[in-house]
Amino acid sequence: MIKQFEPYRRLIEQWLSGFLLSRGKELGKANRWGTDVTKRLSTFATKGKLLRGCLLLFSGRMFDKESENSALEVASAYELIHSSLLIHDDIMDRDTQRRGMPSIFCQYKNLIEDEKAKDPLHVGESLGICAGDLALFFAFEILARVNLDPNIKQRIIYLWSRELGNVGIAQMQDVSFAASMCEPEEKEILSLYLYKTARYTFSTPLITGAILTGQNQGTIGILEELGEYFGLIFQLKDDELGLFGSEAKLGKPVGTDIEEGKKTLIMHYLSGMLEDEDKRRLDTIRQKERILSSDLEFIRSAVRRTKAQERIEKMMNEMERKAENLISKLKVKEADRNILFDLLSFSLRREW
Amino acid sequence: MIKQFEPYRRLIEQWLSGFLLSRGKELGKANRWGTDVTKRLSTFATKGKLLRGCLLLFSGRMFDKESENSALEVASAYELIHSSLLIHDDIMDRDTQRRGMPSIFCQYKNLIEDEKAKDPLHVGESLGICAGDLALFFAFEILARVNLDPNIKQRIIYLWSRELGNVGIAQMQDVSFAASMCEPEEKEILSLYLYKTARYTFSTPLITGAILTGQNQGTIGILEELGEYFGLIFQLKDDELGLFGSEAKLGKPVGTDIEEGKKTLIMHYLSGMLEDEDKRRLDTIRQKERILSSDLEFIRSAVRRTKAQERIEKMMNEMERKAENLISKLKVKEADRNILFDLLSFSLRREW
Repeated sequence: MIKQFEPYRRLIEQWLSGFLLSRGKELGKANRWGTDVTKRLSTFATKGKLLRGCLLLFSGRMFDKESENSALEVASAYELIHSSLLIHDDIMDRDTQRRGMPSIFCQYKNLIEDEKAKDPLHVGESLGICAGDLALFFAFEILARVNLDPNIKQRIIYLWSRELGNVGIAQMQDVSFAASMCEPEEKEILSLYLYKTARYTFSTPLITGAILTGQNQGTIGILEELGEYFGLIFQLKDDELGLFGSEAKLGKPVGTDIEEGKKTLIMHYLSGMLEDEDKRRLDTIRQKERILSSDLEFIRSAVRRTKAQERIEKMMNEMERKAENLISKLKVKEADRNILFDLLSFSLRREW
Repeated sequence: MIKQFEPYRRLIEQWLSGFLLSRGKELGKANRWGTDVTKRLSTFATKGKLLRGCLLLFSGRMFDKESENSALEVASAYELIHSSLLIHDDIMDRDTQRRGMPSIFCQYKNLIEDEKAKDPLHVGESLGICAGDLALFFAFEILARVNLDPNIKQRIIYLWSRELGNVGIAQMQDVSFAASMCEPEEKEILSLYLYKTARYTFSTPLITGAILTGQNQGTIGILEELGEYFGLIFQLKDDELGLFGSEAKLGKPVGTDIEEGKKTLIMHYLSGMLEDEDKRRLDTIRQKERILSSDLEFIRSAVRRTKAQERIEKMMNEMERKAENLISKLKVKEADRNILFDLLSFSLRREW
């Protein structure tokens, strides 16, 4: 992440660890899972980039230096919601690695195996569903207790729950696309990116910071649109890294998007550009549950040859210009504007 | 359910259907799942007993005739949370039937099969996880928008999210017990019943009604304890019906508790009372994934012979006396007190 977010990251990491440690002590009195799940959530939640929480804190501070105390708890709650979604996503996608360690359901699968109990995969998934649910309950508990104007709090809970509704049905779309053989249209893929990633990852944290500091609808509108461009760029870059990135830097294997049947825009373009034998080979690879490194190499070289990635880069560059325009419109200090430009540049050029 | 709750049931059913229809129309613009999932949630949520929502409405009205408008939305939100937990539970327990129809993940499994997509069970479970998450997001959306004193709202969200934390770790305990061969202690089973069912099903709705109408801590304390007794009785009765009940009346098969490895109190007692060949036969049955009607008959007759159920009935009768005492302490109208007595009697004598 950009270095200017590092202090925010540390604040959230510290606050979340403290909160989960204290809740773990309380819940640990009921049974062993109270301590177990809060420890795992603490490690899992604080190992991420904490991009959403940092953005929220940054957005609040950009408008009002004094916003940080309550914003920190709100940002931590948002990160727990994100962890909740990731934990559930990993079950759906059967992703065994996340943030450089086994995903939560895999950790539980391993635990159940060690304890020689029945059906470790299913029980691991079940405990994973519970862990994701718990992360969400903790998030709303934090929102309920944070010292904040009750009207502002109400607006934030409304904003989040509405946006999470969009995320939920986008995730259903994603799951059903991955399971089916049909190729969605370009606009369906972009709508999925908008609702599953862009608005939730960028628009919502930016808007939350603005609500916390009482900004007007004009500013909120700019942040909403800016967040959408940021998020689309972020997702398109994610797809690129999922194909061309380094496993060590990403903390998860490369090529799993294909194995999981993810209908990414790059694969959509590539599929439309290949013909005959190449097209058939691509289709065969896309139906495999485990792809070989030669399969990945075939796709990489086809992407280069057809210049499918250049088409996406052109799209990203247009979005970058629009985002730059929106950033210029924001009435904020020069230093904060530059942080937004840095973040934009990072989103386009990151390697993880 | 008791007939006095029928008007509350209808109110919640109507309000929830309207809310989900309207959200379905909005979300349907994004993709096909918006309409799909809200329709399924509407049918699923309104087909239940709506006991928790009715209790909440009843509790509010018991203290203040005028509480109903906002209480109705709060009660509907609580029912959506309950649907969310049931949808996730059914995935964990692999329960294919619920409320007289296929459980949500099964509905999706069937849909995916019809669409000839890959891996229908896993995709059905994945869409089920999403549907459960969405029910929870909708619940918090309702809480965020309901017209209510913001401080009261905050107290309710805090109460619920704390109690849901308890439910979450109790569910983890339940899942891990079911997966393991070891026999938990009596107090572990009762603690599970307390946190997974009793406090969440009875104490929390009763307390919520009291918070909505500004009751003092003394009253809240009585309701909390009363709810615990109600809930323990309710769960013990549930276990009995799961063994001796009628599938037609329950809307789900009988004997699945055993197939799912549920560590019920009745099985715990039975297991401690059987010896030699009978004990070995019981252990063998408890390890089966599908039990035969002769297995169920063996357990039923062993329960009768050992009088294990009488031991539980004695426990339930003691709890009934304590609950009656607490009901007498409540400063409410005679008619409302009688409804609570009726509910207690129903909990003990119900057939579904």
